[in-house]
Amino acid sequence: MRGGIDLGGTKIQTAVVGDGGKVVADARRPTPTSGGPEDVAAQMAEAMRESAEGANVETGSLEGVGVGSPGDVDEKTGDVSGARNLPEWEESFPLAETLSKALGAEVRVGNDVQVAVNAEKKLGAGRPYDSFLGVFWGTGVGGGVILDGKEWLGRGAAGEIGHMVIKLGGARCTCGRRGCMEAYAGRGAMEIEARKEHDKGTKTELFKIMRKKGHVRLTSGIWERALDDGDRLAEKLIDRAVKALAAGIASAVNLLDVEAVVIGGGLGVRFGDPYVKKISKHMHKHLFVDDNPPAMHVAELGDFGGAIGASLLFGEN
Amino acid sequence: MRGGIDLGGTKIQTAVVGDGGKVVADARRPTPTSGGPEDVAAQMAEAMRESAEGANVETGSLEGVGVGSPGDVDEKTGDVSGARNLPEWEESFPLAETLSKALGAEVRVGNDVQVAVNAEKKLGAGRPYDSFLGVFWGTGVGGGVILDGKEWLGRGAAGEIGHMVIKLGGARCTCGRRGCMEAYAGRGAMEIEARKEHDKGTKTELFKIMRKKGHVRLTSGIWERALDDGDRLAEKLIDRAVKALAAGIASAVNLLDVEAVVIGGGLGVRFGDPYVKKISKHMHKHLFVDDNPPAMHVAELGDFGGAIGASLLFGEN
Repeated sequence: MRGGIDLGGTKIQTAVVGDGGKVVADARRPTPTSGGPEDVAAQMAEAMRESAEGANVETGSLEGVGVGSPGDVDEKTGDVSGARNLPEWEESFPLAETLSKALGAEVRVGNDVQVAVNAEKKLGAGRPYDSFLGVFWGTGVGGGVILDGKEWLGRGAAGEIGHMVIKLGGARCTCGRRGCMEAYAGRGAMEIEARKEHDKGTKTELFKIMRKKGHVRLTSGIWERALDDGDRLAEKLIDRAVKALAAGIASAVNLLDVEAVVIGGGLGVRFGDPYVKKISKHMHKHLFVDDNPPAMHVAELGDFGGAIGASLLFGEN
Repeated sequence: MRGGIDLGGTKIQTAVVGDGGKVVADARRPTPTSGGPEDVAAQMAEAMRESAEGANVETGSLEGVGVGSPGDVDEKTGDVSGARNLPEWEESFPLAETLSKALGAEVRVGNDVQVAVNAEKKLGAGRPYDSFLGVFWGTGVGGGVILDGKEWLGRGAAGEIGHMVIKLGGARCTCGRRGCMEAYAGRGAMEIEARKEHDKGTKTELFKIMRKKGHVRLTSGIWERALDDGDRLAEKLIDRAVKALAAGIASAVNLLDVEAVVIGGGLGVRFGDPYVKKISKHMHKHLFVDDNPPAMHVAELGDFGGAIGASLLFGEN
């Protein structure tokens, strides 16, 4: 058995994973919003221990623990820097070393999106395809490009579908640039916009639901609840996000003509099929070859894709 | 020696090509704007004959004549359909068969952008790179994606960089969709916009220069001349095109992280280095990894890239 940790901007998801990607036990915690890398690593270790307890194993007896991390990951050392959705994590931090000490197990760190897209390729919705686009709709919008059966990394930084320009001169993105897809579709950007509207007096239940649930951020569950309640601001911002995703994905499809698109991430998995259909519908308007659209799927491994993919850093192969 | 014909929306460029892509003789004519495929094919044959005369050969003694064509090309039969920038060319037309009869030579037809990007890969600015993006800035904006040393075609329709969405809800494209890069940067779309402004009373020399040169379309040379004369409308529309190209190319680079971008096409080659620098400058604002931009080049084979690439359909390999 292997451990897998998906370090997200909103939550830390851990799992103990058996052969064939089977999740034996899992645990999750909110990602700390203050402090620094040490505090995040401590929460990661706690959540991993909780998973191990659930699976009745010691973390030290796992074959290894894989981590999918945002930011710049040095896969050789397991150091991580520039994780801009995490607190005070600009400088390089020895994540693998710190977790290895805390867990008594070997730890490997990979890019969060790359491990998740790899999991969908090997065990999930991407299995039937030689080429597909993985789109991870969460705090940010990450992407993975599978071509000829393997991930295309370019010079190491490919897949930034969230920063494709879908509206020249448009909204300010959390990355500082303008008009990126993520500036409309990322949950981080959506929350900033919701707070702005709320401060201006626009009526919304979003922040009431947030407080009631004891959260400090607008999680995917809060957005879903607000939609269920017919919250107008939530509907408006989700609709805007869907159209932005559709335009960015269509651009990528026009450029690469892949066989399929797999949509995951916190919001993607939470909203599932009905929203993949909505994205698909809006995407269709922008497809240059509109009689041969790609197949559209929700990420099959759901919320566990990142953790399962991270566990695959200790390969079965 | 081989023949090569580049069938563009504005002009037909032919060449007799020797080993190593050397142009022995060439000829060009405007693409007919009325009539149908037969008329276009007749002009192509005439222009090819003129090239052959210049090289002191009979067309019948050429190893073969390659054609780079817009629209849907059936490479096996040499039939072409759906060439929307050409007159009355929706239905399938037997281009290879027609030209073969007229020239007494074997004729092969390939996709115009694919043959041009292949020429830049084998003989031009793309030679040093394993991955690059070819951007052909002309009547439309075509693209070619070279990854791992070969062209990525997806399911056959990859490379439509001109129809990446750069402005959601933006200008109407000649393809009928909204906000495509080509809706701002394609010479076809630019001409429509210039005519609209001219009809509204905006002052411009563009159409005076066109009439003086005896043209019915705003060719690359006319745009260049208007810029040299400080024409405000020409400046405005070219600036808009540059920003659109920059946004679309940046999106593609954020997705694929290629080593280089090669800019060709009628306008790309005509405007050359100073405009590649402008595109580069605006692109930089949108690059997610902005400390590692791709190398930027003008297509090295210039105006002949399409014809040389077409001649390579009769391979040296």
